[in-house]
Amino acid sequence: MNVGIIGLGLIGGSMAVDLRRRGFASHILGVENERVNAEAALKIGLADEIVPLEECVSRSDIIVLAIPVGAAVKLLPQVLDMVKESDKVVIDVCSVKEAMCQVAQGHSARSRYVATHPMAGTEYSGPWAAMPGLFDGRACIFCDVEESSPKAVKLVEKLYDVLNMRVTYMRSDAHDMHVAYVSHISHITSFALALTVLDKEKDEKHIFDLASGGFSSTVRLAKSSADMWVPILGLNHDNVLRVIDTYIDKMKEFRDAIDAYDEEKIRALIEEGNKIKRIIR
Amino acid sequence: MNVGIIGLGLIGGSMAVDLRRRGFASHILGVENERVNAEAALKIGLADEIVPLEECVSRSDIIVLAIPVGAAVKLLPQVLDMVKESDKVVIDVCSVKEAMCQVAQGHSARSRYVATHPMAGTEYSGPWAAMPGLFDGRACIFCDVEESSPKAVKLVEKLYDVLNMRVTYMRSDAHDMHVAYVSHISHITSFALALTVLDKEKDEKHIFDLASGGFSSTVRLAKSSADMWVPILGLNHDNVLRVIDTYIDKMKEFRDAIDAYDEEKIRALIEEGNKIKRIIR
Repeated sequence: MNVGIIGLGLIGGSMAVDLRRRGFASHILGVENERVNAEAALKIGLADEIVPLEECVSRSDIIVLAIPVGAAVKLLPQVLDMVKESDKVVIDVCSVKEAMCQVAQGHSARSRYVATHPMAGTEYSGPWAAMPGLFDGRACIFCDVEESSPKAVKLVEKLYDVLNMRVTYMRSDAHDMHVAYVSHISHITSFALALTVLDKEKDEKHIFDLASGGFSSTVRLAKSSADMWVPILGLNHDNVLRVIDTYIDKMKEFRDAIDAYDEEKIRALIEEGNKIKRIIR
Repeated sequence: MNVGIIGLGLIGGSMAVDLRRRGFASHILGVENERVNAEAALKIGLADEIVPLEECVSRSDIIVLAIPVGAAVKLLPQVLDMVKESDKVVIDVCSVKEAMCQVAQGHSARSRYVATHPMAGTEYSGPWAAMPGLFDGRACIFCDVEESSPKAVKLVEKLYDVLNMRVTYMRSDAHDMHVAYVSHISHITSFALALTVLDKEKDEKHIFDLASGGFSSTVRLAKSSADMWVPILGLNHDNVLRVIDTYIDKMKEFRDAIDAYDEEKIRALIEEGNKIKRIIR
Protein backbone atom coordinates (compact mmCIF):
# COMPACT_ATOMS: atom_id res chain seq x y z
CA MET A 1 0.00 0.00 0.00
CA ASN A 2 1.20 3.51 -0.80
CA VAL A 3 1.22 5.67 2.31
CA GLY A 4 1.47 9.45 2.04
CA ILE A 5 2.76 11.26 5.09
CA ILE A 6 2.44 15.01 5.29
CA GLY A 7 5.00 16.17 7.81
CA LEU A 8 7.92 13.87 8.59
CA GLY A 9 8.57 14.92 12.17
CA LEU A 10 8.47 12.88 15.36
CA ILE A 11 5.00 11.41 14.78
CA GLY A 12 4.92 11.18 10.97
CA GLY A 13 8.49 9.90 10.84
CA SER A 14 7.96 7.30 13.55
CA MET A 15 4.82 6.08 11.78
CA ALA A 16 6.82 5.77 8.55
CA VAL A 17 9.46 3.63 10.26
CA ASP A 18 7.05 1.06 11.72
CA LEU A 19 4.51 1.02 8.88
CA ARG A 20 7.31 0.10 6.52
CA ARG A 21 9.21 -2.44 8.59
CA ARG A 22 5.97 -4.16 9.58
CA GLY A 23 4.85 -4.47 5.97
CA PHE A 24 1.84 -2.13 5.97
CA ALA A 25 3.47 0.41 3.64
CA SER A 26 5.17 -0.73 0.47
CA HIS A 27 6.01 2.80 -0.60
CA ILE A 28 6.11 6.00 1.44
CA LEU A 29 5.55 9.40 -0.15
CA GLY A 30 6.51 12.26 2.09
CA VAL A 31 5.54 15.92 1.97
CA GLU A 32 7.89 18.18 3.89
CA ASN A 33 8.11 21.91 3.31
CA GLU A 34 11.21 22.53 5.42
CA ARG A 35 14.15 21.78 3.12
CA VAL A 36 16.48 20.62 5.90
CA ASN A 37 13.84 18.30 7.32
CA ALA A 38 13.09 16.91 3.86
CA GLU A 39 16.75 16.13 3.22
CA ALA A 40 17.15 14.58 6.65
CA ALA A 41 14.00 12.47 6.22
CA LEU A 42 15.34 11.09 2.95
CA LYS A 43 18.78 10.49 4.40
CA ILE A 44 17.37 8.68 7.47
CA GLY A 45 15.13 6.71 5.09
CA LEU A 46 11.78 7.78 6.52
CA ALA A 47 10.29 8.29 3.05
CA ASP A 48 11.07 6.85 -0.37
CA GLU A 49 10.44 10.19 -2.02
CA ILE A 50 9.62 13.73 -1.03
CA VAL A 51 6.94 15.00 -3.41
CA PRO A 52 4.60 17.98 -3.69
CA LEU A 53 1.29 17.77 -1.81
CA GLU A 54 -0.87 17.10 -4.90
CA GLU A 55 1.36 14.27 -6.09
CA CYS A 56 1.45 12.73 -2.61
CA VAL A 57 -2.35 12.70 -2.38
CA SER A 58 -2.89 11.43 -5.92
CA ARG A 59 -0.41 8.54 -5.58
CA SER A 60 -1.26 7.43 -1.99
CA ASP A 61 -3.95 5.05 -0.76
CA ILE A 62 -3.92 6.53 2.71
CA ILE A 63 -2.79 10.04 3.59
CA VAL A 64 -1.60 10.98 7.07
CA LEU A 65 -1.64 14.62 8.18
CA ALA A 66 1.17 14.79 10.73
CA ILE A 67 1.70 18.53 11.01
CA PRO A 68 0.90 20.95 13.86
CA VAL A 69 -2.84 21.27 14.42
CA GLY A 70 -3.01 24.91 13.31
CA ALA A 71 -1.71 23.96 9.87
CA ALA A 72 -3.70 20.72 9.79
CA VAL A 73 -6.98 22.56 10.33
CA LYS A 74 -6.24 24.63 7.24
CA LEU A 75 -4.94 21.77 5.11
CA LEU A 76 -7.62 19.16 5.80
CA PRO A 77 -10.36 20.70 3.57
CA GLN A 78 -7.87 21.06 0.72
CA VAL A 79 -6.82 17.44 1.00
CA LEU A 80 -10.46 16.35 1.18
CA ASP A 81 -11.10 18.32 -2.03
CA MET A 82 -8.39 16.25 -3.70
CA VAL A 83 -9.76 12.85 -2.61
CA LYS A 84 -13.41 13.49 -3.46
CA GLU A 85 -13.72 11.11 -6.39
CA SER A 86 -11.67 8.27 -4.87
CA ASP A 87 -11.71 5.74 -2.06
CA LYS A 88 -8.55 7.15 -0.57
CA VAL A 89 -8.52 7.58 3.19
CA VAL A 90 -7.27 10.65 5.05
CA ILE A 91 -6.31 10.71 8.72
CA ASP A 92 -4.76 13.26 11.03
CA VAL A 93 -2.84 12.62 14.24
CA CYS A 94 -3.36 15.92 16.06
CA SER A 95 -3.98 16.21 19.78
CA VAL A 96 -6.96 18.57 19.31
CA LYS A 97 -9.89 16.90 17.60
CA GLU A 98 -13.00 19.06 17.78
CA ALA A 99 -11.56 21.77 15.51
CA MET A 100 -10.43 19.13 13.02
CA CYS A 101 -13.85 17.48 12.91
CA GLN A 102 -15.60 20.84 12.65
CA VAL A 103 -13.57 21.94 9.66
CA ALA A 104 -14.38 18.67 7.87
CA GLN A 105 -18.07 18.79 8.75
CA GLY A 106 -20.34 18.88 5.71
CA HIS A 107 -17.51 18.32 3.26
CA SER A 108 -18.60 16.01 0.45
CA ALA A 109 -15.59 13.80 1.22
CA ARG A 110 -16.11 13.85 5.02
CA SER A 111 -16.63 10.09 5.09
CA ARG A 112 -13.12 9.54 3.72
CA TYR A 113 -11.62 11.26 6.78
CA VAL A 114 -10.94 9.51 10.09
CA ALA A 115 -9.96 11.71 13.04
CA THR A 116 -7.33 9.95 15.19
CA HIS A 117 -5.02 10.81 18.04
CA PRO A 118 -2.23 8.34 18.71
CA MET A 119 -1.23 9.19 22.30
CA ALA A 120 2.49 8.74 22.03
CA GLY A 121 5.39 11.08 21.69
CA THR A 122 8.50 12.46 23.26
CA GLU A 123 9.58 16.01 24.04
CA TYR A 124 11.69 16.03 20.86
CA SER A 125 10.66 17.02 17.36
CA GLY A 126 11.76 16.82 13.73
CA PRO A 127 12.75 13.81 11.58
CA TRP A 128 15.74 13.23 13.89
CA ALA A 129 13.32 12.45 16.70
CA ALA A 130 11.55 9.65 14.75
CA MET A 131 12.00 6.24 16.34
CA PRO A 132 10.77 2.67 15.97
CA GLY A 133 8.27 1.33 18.49
CA LEU A 134 7.04 4.79 19.56
CA PHE A 135 3.39 3.73 19.46
CA ASP A 136 3.65 0.18 20.83
CA GLY A 137 1.13 -0.49 23.59
CA ARG A 138 -0.16 3.08 23.78
CA ALA A 139 -3.72 4.35 23.35
CA CYS A 140 -5.08 5.77 20.11
CA ILE A 141 -8.34 7.70 20.14
CA PHE A 142 -10.69 7.72 17.15
CA CYS A 143 -13.18 10.59 17.21
CA ASP A 144 -16.66 10.93 15.73
CA VAL A 145 -16.25 7.71 13.71
CA GLU A 146 -19.95 7.71 12.77
CA GLU A 147 -19.04 10.51 10.34
CA SER A 148 -16.50 8.29 8.58
CA SER A 149 -17.25 5.43 6.21
CA PRO A 150 -17.01 2.02 7.90
CA LYS A 151 -14.54 0.89 5.25
CA ALA A 152 -12.28 3.88 5.94
CA VAL A 153 -12.45 3.25 9.70
CA LYS A 154 -11.56 -0.38 9.14
CA LEU A 155 -8.44 0.49 7.14
CA VAL A 156 -7.31 2.96 9.80
CA GLU A 157 -7.92 0.40 12.54
CA LYS A 158 -5.65 -1.94 10.61
CA LEU A 159 -2.99 0.76 10.40
CA TYR A 160 -3.03 1.32 14.17
CA ASP A 161 -3.13 -2.41 14.79
CA VAL A 162 0.15 -2.64 12.90
CA LEU A 163 1.47 0.09 15.21
CA ASN A 164 0.36 -2.02 18.22
CA MET A 165 -2.00 0.62 19.56
CA ARG A 166 -5.15 0.07 21.64
CA VAL A 167 -7.97 1.94 19.90
CA THR A 168 -10.59 3.86 21.93
CA TYR A 169 -13.61 5.68 20.46
CA MET A 170 -14.81 9.02 21.72
CA ARG A 171 -16.70 12.19 20.81
CA SER A 172 -14.26 14.86 19.67
CA ASP A 173 -15.42 17.31 22.34
CA ALA A 174 -14.96 14.71 25.10
CA HIS A 175 -11.52 13.92 23.69
CA ASP A 176 -10.43 17.55 23.88
CA MET A 177 -11.55 17.85 27.50
CA HIS A 178 -9.78 14.63 28.47
CA VAL A 179 -6.46 15.50 26.84
CA ALA A 180 -6.53 18.93 28.48
CA TYR A 181 -6.36 17.04 31.80
CA VAL A 182 -3.98 14.22 31.01
CA SER A 183 -1.66 15.85 28.51
CA HIS A 184 -1.99 19.56 27.86
CA ILE A 185 -1.84 20.69 31.52
CA SER A 186 1.30 18.58 32.07
CA HIS A 187 3.04 20.58 29.38
CA ILE A 188 1.94 23.88 30.83
CA THR A 189 3.07 22.97 34.36
CA SER A 190 6.45 21.98 32.91
CA PHE A 191 6.80 25.23 30.98
CA ALA A 192 5.92 27.23 34.11
CA LEU A 193 8.42 25.23 36.16
CA ALA A 194 11.17 25.82 33.60
CA LEU A 195 10.39 29.55 33.55
CA THR A 196 10.44 29.72 37.36
CA VAL A 197 13.81 28.07 37.68
CA LEU A 198 15.42 29.75 34.66
CA ASP A 199 14.36 33.08 36.12
CA LYS A 200 16.21 32.31 39.35
CA GLU A 201 19.23 31.15 37.40
CA LYS A 202 19.91 34.74 36.35
CA ASP A 203 21.14 35.44 39.90
CA GLU A 204 22.34 31.98 40.83
CA LYS A 205 24.63 30.61 38.17
CA HIS A 206 25.16 27.22 39.72
CA ILE A 207 21.65 26.35 40.64
CA PHE A 208 21.47 23.55 38.11
CA ASP A 209 24.47 21.66 39.40
CA LEU A 210 21.97 20.26 41.82
CA ALA A 211 19.18 19.39 39.40
CA SER A 212 18.20 15.86 40.28
CA GLY A 213 16.16 13.14 38.66
CA GLY A 214 12.93 14.45 40.13
CA PHE A 215 13.39 17.87 38.62
CA SER A 216 14.38 16.42 35.24
CA SER A 217 11.30 14.30 34.89
CA THR A 218 8.96 17.05 36.05
CA VAL A 219 10.42 19.65 33.69
CA ARG A 220 11.09 17.33 30.73
CA LEU A 221 8.03 18.39 28.72
CA ALA A 222 9.25 22.02 28.78
CA LYS A 223 11.54 21.02 25.91
CA SER A 224 8.46 20.61 23.68
CA SER A 225 8.28 22.78 20.59
CA ALA A 226 6.37 26.04 20.29
CA ASP A 227 5.38 25.14 16.71
CA MET A 228 3.39 22.23 18.04
CA TRP A 229 2.05 23.79 21.24
CA VAL A 230 0.99 27.31 20.25
CA PRO A 231 -1.83 26.04 17.99
CA ILE A 232 -2.89 23.34 20.48
CA LEU A 233 -3.36 25.94 23.19
CA GLY A 234 -5.39 28.05 20.80
CA LEU A 235 -7.61 25.30 19.47
CA ASN A 236 -8.22 23.66 22.84
CA HIS A 237 -8.46 27.05 24.51
CA ASP A 238 -11.57 26.65 26.69
CA ASN A 239 -10.67 23.23 28.10
CA VAL A 240 -7.08 24.25 28.76
CA LEU A 241 -8.11 27.45 30.55
CA ARG A 242 -10.53 25.55 32.75
CA VAL A 243 -7.82 23.07 33.78
CA ILE A 244 -5.26 25.81 34.41
CA ASP A 245 -7.73 27.61 36.66
CA THR A 246 -8.38 24.46 38.67
CA TYR A 247 -4.65 23.87 38.84
CA ILE A 248 -3.94 27.39 40.11
CA ASP A 249 -6.65 26.91 42.76
CA LYS A 250 -5.05 23.66 43.93
CA MET A 251 -1.62 25.27 43.96
CA LYS A 252 -2.94 28.19 46.05
CA GLU A 253 -4.59 25.78 48.48
CA PHE A 254 -1.20 24.10 48.88
CA ARG A 255 0.54 27.46 49.16
CA ASP A 256 -1.78 28.72 51.87
CA ALA A 257 -1.46 25.50 53.86
CA ILE A 258 2.34 25.84 53.72
CA ASP A 259 2.13 29.56 54.53
CA ALA A 260 0.11 28.83 57.68
CA TYR A 261 2.13 25.64 58.16
CA ASP A 262 -1.06 23.71 58.74
CA GLU A 263 0.51 20.26 59.06
CA GLU A 264 -2.78 18.38 58.96
CA LYS A 265 -3.92 20.19 55.83
CA ILE A 266 -0.57 19.67 54.04
CA ARG A 267 -0.65 15.99 54.96
CA ALA A 268 -4.23 15.67 53.70
CA LEU A 269 -3.33 17.32 50.38
CA ILE A 270 -0.27 15.12 49.88
CA GLU A 271 -2.17 11.95 50.77
CA GLU A 272 -4.96 12.92 48.40
CA GLY A 273 -2.33 13.49 45.68
CA ASN A 274 -0.77 10.11 46.50
CA LYS A 275 -3.93 8.48 45.15
CA ILE A 276 -2.43 9.02 41.72
CA LYS A 277 -0.69 5.69 42.49
CA ARG A 278 -3.96 4.00 41.58
CA ILE A 279 -3.59 5.32 38.09
CA ILE A 280 0.03 5.41 37.08
CA ARG A 281 2.70 2.88 37.76
CA MET B 1 33.92 -0.44 59.95
CA ASN B 2 30.66 -0.59 61.93
CA VAL B 3 28.00 1.57 60.34
CA GLY B 4 24.88 2.54 62.26
CA ILE B 5 21.87 3.54 60.20
CA ILE B 6 18.93 5.17 61.91
CA GLY B 7 15.96 4.68 59.59
CA LEU B 8 16.16 1.87 57.03
CA GLY B 9 13.94 3.39 54.36
CA LEU B 10 14.73 4.28 50.76
CA ILE B 11 17.85 6.32 51.55
CA GLY B 12 19.17 4.54 54.64
CA GLY B 13 18.44 1.13 53.14
CA SER B 14 20.06 1.94 49.79
CA MET B 15 23.15 3.24 51.60
CA ALA B 16 23.33 0.00 53.58
CA VAL B 17 23.24 -2.07 50.38
CA ASP B 18 26.12 -0.30 48.65
CA LEU B 19 28.25 0.41 51.74
CA ARG B 20 28.26 -3.28 52.47
CA ARG B 21 28.79 -4.73 49.00
CA ARG B 22 31.54 -2.19 48.28
CA GLY B 23 33.38 -3.09 51.48
CA PHE B 24 32.99 0.15 53.44
CA ALA B 25 30.78 -1.42 56.11
CA SER B 26 31.75 -4.69 57.73
CA HIS B 27 28.74 -4.68 60.06
CA ILE B 28 25.52 -2.70 59.83
CA LEU B 29 23.48 -1.83 62.90
CA GLY B 30 20.02 -0.58 62.11
CA VAL B 31 17.58 1.39 64.20
CA GLU B 32 14.01 1.13 63.01
CA ASN B 33 11.02 1.96 65.19
CA GLU B 34 8.35 0.64 62.84
CA ARG B 35 8.14 -3.08 63.53
CA VAL B 36 7.10 -4.05 60.01
CA ASN B 37 9.93 -2.02 58.50
CA ALA B 38 12.41 -3.52 60.94
CA GLU B 39 11.39 -7.06 60.07
CA ALA B 40 11.45 -6.30 56.35
CA ALA B 41 14.89 -4.68 56.62
CA LEU B 42 16.27 -7.79 58.31
CA LYS B 43 14.60 -10.08 55.82
CA ILE B 44 15.92 -8.11 52.83
CA GLY B 45 19.32 -8.07 54.52
CA LEU B 46 19.74 -4.31 54.80
CA ALA B 47 21.08 -4.57 58.36
CA ASP B 48 22.84 -7.32 60.32
CA GLU B 49 20.91 -6.43 63.45
CA ILE B 50 18.16 -4.10 64.52
CA VAL B 51 19.17 -2.60 67.86
CA PRO B 52 18.00 0.18 70.19
CA LEU B 53 19.30 3.68 69.48
CA GLU B 54 21.84 3.77 72.34
CA GLU B 55 23.35 0.44 71.37
CA CYS B 56 23.54 1.48 67.72
CA VAL B 57 25.43 4.66 68.60
CA SER B 58 27.75 2.99 71.11
CA ARG B 59 28.75 0.16 68.74
CA SER B 60 29.06 2.17 65.47
CA ASP B 61 32.01 4.14 64.11
CA ILE B 62 29.79 6.24 61.88
CA ILE B 63 26.11 6.94 62.48
CA VAL B 64 23.76 7.93 59.67
CA LEU B 65 20.49 9.73 60.47
CA ALA B 66 18.20 8.69 57.63
CA ILE B 67 14.80 9.66 58.99
CA PRO B 68 12.41 12.48 57.96
CA VAL B 69 13.88 15.90 58.72
CA GLY B 70 11.33 16.77 61.41
CA ALA B 71 12.43 13.76 63.47
CA ALA B 72 16.11 14.23 62.59
CA VAL B 73 16.11 17.79 63.95
CA LYS B 74 14.93 16.43 67.28
CA LEU B 75 17.21 13.40 67.35
CA LEU B 76 20.50 15.01 66.31
CA PRO B 77 21.28 16.71 69.68
CA GLN B 78 20.54 13.46 71.53
CA VAL B 79 22.87 11.51 69.28
CA LEU B 80 25.55 14.19 69.66
CA ASP B 81 25.19 13.88 73.45
CA MET B 82 25.99 10.18 73.09
CA VAL B 83 29.14 10.62 70.97
CA LYS B 84 30.72 13.44 73.03
CA GLU B 85 33.63 11.49 74.46
CA SER B 86 34.48 9.57 71.25
CA ASP B 87 35.76 10.07 67.74
CA LYS B 88 32.57 8.68 66.25
CA VAL B 89 31.13 10.58 63.30
CA VAL B 90 27.45 11.48 62.83
CA ILE B 91 25.87 12.44 59.51
CA ASP B 92 22.35 13.16 58.34
CA VAL B 93 20.98 12.88 54.81
CA CYS B 94 18.03 15.28 54.99
CA SER B 95 17.05 17.64 52.20
CA VAL B 96 16.77 20.65 54.54
CA LYS B 97 20.10 21.66 56.03
CA GLU B 98 19.86 25.01 57.80
CA ALA B 99 17.57 23.69 60.56
CA MET B 100 19.87 20.69 61.07
CA CYS B 101 22.98 22.86 61.36
CA GLN B 102 21.20 25.31 63.67
CA VAL B 103 20.14 22.61 66.10
CA ALA B 104 23.72 21.33 66.29
CA GLN B 105 25.23 24.79 66.68
CA GLY B 106 27.18 25.25 69.89
CA HIS B 107 26.93 21.58 70.87
CA SER B 108 30.15 20.35 72.43
CA ALA B 109 30.21 17.52 69.89
CA ARG B 110 29.33 19.76 66.89
CA SER B 111 32.63 18.92 65.21
CA ARG B 112 31.70 15.23 65.07
CA TYR B 113 28.66 16.04 62.91
CA VAL B 114 28.80 16.46 59.12
CA ALA B 115 25.66 17.79 57.42
CA THR B 116 25.15 16.08 54.05
CA HIS B 117 22.46 15.83 51.41
CA PRO B 118 22.88 13.04 48.89
CA MET B 119 20.65 14.19 46.00
CA ALA B 120 19.21 10.89 44.96
CA GLY B 121 15.93 9.17 45.49
CA THR B 122 12.81 7.83 43.94
CA GLU B 123 9.15 8.52 44.65
CA TYR B 124 8.97 5.32 46.72
CA SER B 125 9.70 4.84 50.41
CA GLY B 126 10.34 2.17 53.01
CA PRO B 127 12.91 -0.66 53.12
CA TRP B 128 11.21 -2.20 50.07
CA ALA B 129 12.28 0.81 48.05
CA ALA B 130 15.98 0.40 48.87
CA MET B 131 18.08 -0.39 45.81
CA PRO B 132 21.72 -0.77 44.81
CA GLY B 133 23.35 2.00 42.79
CA LEU B 134 20.85 4.67 43.86
CA PHE B 135 23.57 7.24 44.49
CA ASP B 136 25.94 6.47 41.61
CA GLY B 137 26.97 9.58 39.70
CA ARG B 138 24.66 11.96 41.61
CA ALA B 139 25.56 15.09 43.58
CA CYS B 140 26.01 15.14 47.34
CA ILE B 141 26.08 18.46 49.15
CA PHE B 142 28.09 18.98 52.33
CA CYS B 143 27.02 22.03 54.34
CA ASP B 144 28.95 24.25 56.74
CA VAL B 145 31.92 21.86 56.79
CA GLU B 146 34.05 24.43 58.62
CA GLU B 147 32.02 23.50 61.71
CA SER B 148 33.03 19.85 61.40
CA SER B 149 36.42 18.37 62.25
CA PRO B 150 38.59 17.81 59.15
CA LYS B 151 39.03 14.17 60.13
CA ALA B 152 35.26 13.66 60.31
CA VAL B 153 34.77 15.37 56.94
CA LYS B 154 37.44 13.14 55.42
CA LEU B 155 35.72 9.97 56.61
CA VAL B 156 32.38 11.14 55.25
CA GLU B 157 33.99 12.05 51.93
CA LYS B 158 35.29 8.50 51.78
CA LEU B 159 31.81 7.14 52.47
CA TYR B 160 30.30 9.15 49.61
CA ASP B 161 33.22 8.25 47.36
CA VAL B 162 32.27 4.61 47.89
CA LEU B 163 28.72 5.56 46.87
CA ASN B 164 30.13 7.16 43.69
CA MET B 165 28.80 10.61 44.47
CA ARG B 166 30.25 13.98 43.40
CA VAL B 167 30.64 16.09 46.52
CA THR B 168 29.83 19.83 46.49
CA TYR B 169 30.30 22.21 49.44
CA MET B 170 27.82 24.92 50.30
CA ARG B 171 26.46 27.11 53.09
CA SER B 172 23.37 25.50 54.61
CA ASP B 173 21.19 28.56 53.86
CA ALA B 174 22.30 28.58 50.20
CA HIS B 175 21.60 24.84 50.02
CA ASP B 176 18.04 25.29 51.25
CA MET B 177 17.33 28.01 48.68
CA HIS B 178 18.80 25.92 45.84
CA VAL B 179 16.88 22.75 46.66
CA ALA B 180 13.64 24.75 46.92
CA TYR B 181 14.13 25.52 43.21
CA VAL B 182 15.47 22.25 41.86
CA SER B 183 13.68 19.75 44.04
CA HIS B 184 11.00 20.96 46.43
CA ILE B 185 8.97 22.94 43.86
CA SER B 186 8.94 19.92 41.51
CA HIS B 187 7.21 17.91 44.19
CA ILE B 188 4.66 20.63 44.84
CA THR B 189 3.82 21.04 41.14
CA SER B 190 3.34 17.27 40.91
CA PHE B 191 1.06 17.19 43.95
CA ALA B 192 -1.01 20.05 42.53
CA LEU B 193 -1.23 18.29 39.16
CA ALA B 194 -2.37 15.05 40.79
CA LEU B 195 -4.99 16.93 42.82
CA THR B 196 -6.25 18.73 39.70
CA VAL B 197 -6.69 15.56 37.70
CA LEU B 198 -8.01 13.42 40.55
CA ASP B 199 -10.61 16.10 41.20
CA LYS B 200 -11.84 15.84 37.62
CA GLU B 201 -11.87 12.07 37.85
CA LYS B 202 -14.83 12.26 40.22
CA ASP B 203 -17.02 13.17 37.23
CA GLU B 204 -15.09 11.44 34.48
CA LYS B 205 -14.40 7.86 35.40
CA HIS B 206 -12.32 7.00 32.37
CA ILE B 207 -10.09 10.01 32.20
CA PHE B 208 -6.99 8.01 33.03
CA ASP B 209 -7.36 5.51 30.23
CA LEU B 210 -5.63 8.21 28.26
CA ALA B 211 -2.83 9.04 30.66
CA SER B 212 0.30 9.05 28.53
CA GLY B 213 4.01 9.04 29.21
CA GLY B 214 4.17 12.82 29.51
CA PHE B 215 1.56 12.88 32.25
CA SER B 216 3.20 10.01 34.11
CA SER B 217 6.60 11.65 34.27
CA THR B 218 5.18 15.03 35.28
CA VAL B 219 3.01 13.61 38.05
CA ARG B 220 5.41 10.89 39.24
CA LEU B 221 6.64 12.80 42.30
CA ALA B 222 3.07 13.06 43.58
CA LYS B 223 3.56 9.52 44.86
CA SER B 224 6.07 10.85 47.41
CA SER B 225 5.26 10.27 51.07
CA ALA B 226 3.67 12.79 53.40
CA ASP B 227 5.93 11.61 56.25
CA MET B 228 8.93 12.88 54.34
CA TRP B 229 7.41 16.01 52.79
CA VAL B 230 5.35 17.58 55.57
CA PRO B 231 8.47 18.41 57.67
CA ILE B 232 10.48 19.51 54.61
CA LEU B 233 7.83 22.06 53.71
CA GLY B 234 7.80 23.29 57.29
CA LEU B 235 11.56 23.54 57.74
CA ASN B 236 12.24 25.07 54.31
CA HIS B 237 9.11 27.18 54.58
CA ASP B 238 10.38 30.62 53.46
CA ASN B 239 12.32 29.40 50.43
CA VAL B 240 9.49 27.12 49.33
CA LEU B 241 6.88 29.89 49.62
CA ARG B 242 9.02 32.26 47.59
CA VAL B 243 9.40 29.69 44.79
CA ILE B 244 5.68 28.81 44.81
CA ASP B 245 4.82 32.51 44.48
CA THR B 246 7.15 32.91 41.50
CA TYR B 247 5.69 29.74 40.03
CA ILE B 248 2.10 30.97 40.42
CA ASP B 249 3.11 34.26 38.75
CA LYS B 250 4.61 32.39 35.78
CA MET B 251 1.56 30.16 35.54
CA LYS B 252 -0.73 33.20 35.55
CA GLU B 253 1.35 34.87 32.85
CA PHE B 254 0.90 31.73 30.76
CA ARG B 255 -2.80 31.59 31.61
CA ASP B 256 -3.42 35.18 30.61
CA ALA B 257 -1.53 34.75 27.33
CA ILE B 258 -3.69 31.71 26.54
CA ASP B 259 -6.85 33.52 27.66
CA ALA B 260 -6.12 36.39 25.27
CA TYR B 261 -4.69 33.89 22.79
CA ASP B 262 -1.67 36.12 22.30
CA GLU B 263 0.27 33.82 19.98
CA GLU B 264 3.48 35.82 20.11
CA LYS B 265 3.46 35.89 23.90
CA ILE B 266 2.71 32.16 24.19
CA ARG B 267 5.49 31.39 21.71
CA ALA B 268 7.92 33.59 23.64
CA LEU B 269 7.08 31.87 26.93
CA ILE B 270 7.47 28.40 25.44
CA GLU B 271 10.74 29.27 23.76
CA GLU B 272 12.05 30.77 27.00
CA GLY B 273 11.04 27.55 28.77
CA ASN B 274 12.77 25.50 26.06
CA LYS B 275 16.08 26.90 27.33
CA ILE B 276 15.87 24.26 30.02
CA LYS B 277 17.47 22.07 27.30
CA ARG B 278 20.75 23.73 28.22
CA ILE B 279 20.50 22.26 31.65
CA ILE B 280 18.89 18.85 31.50
CA ARG B 281 19.40 16.12 28.99
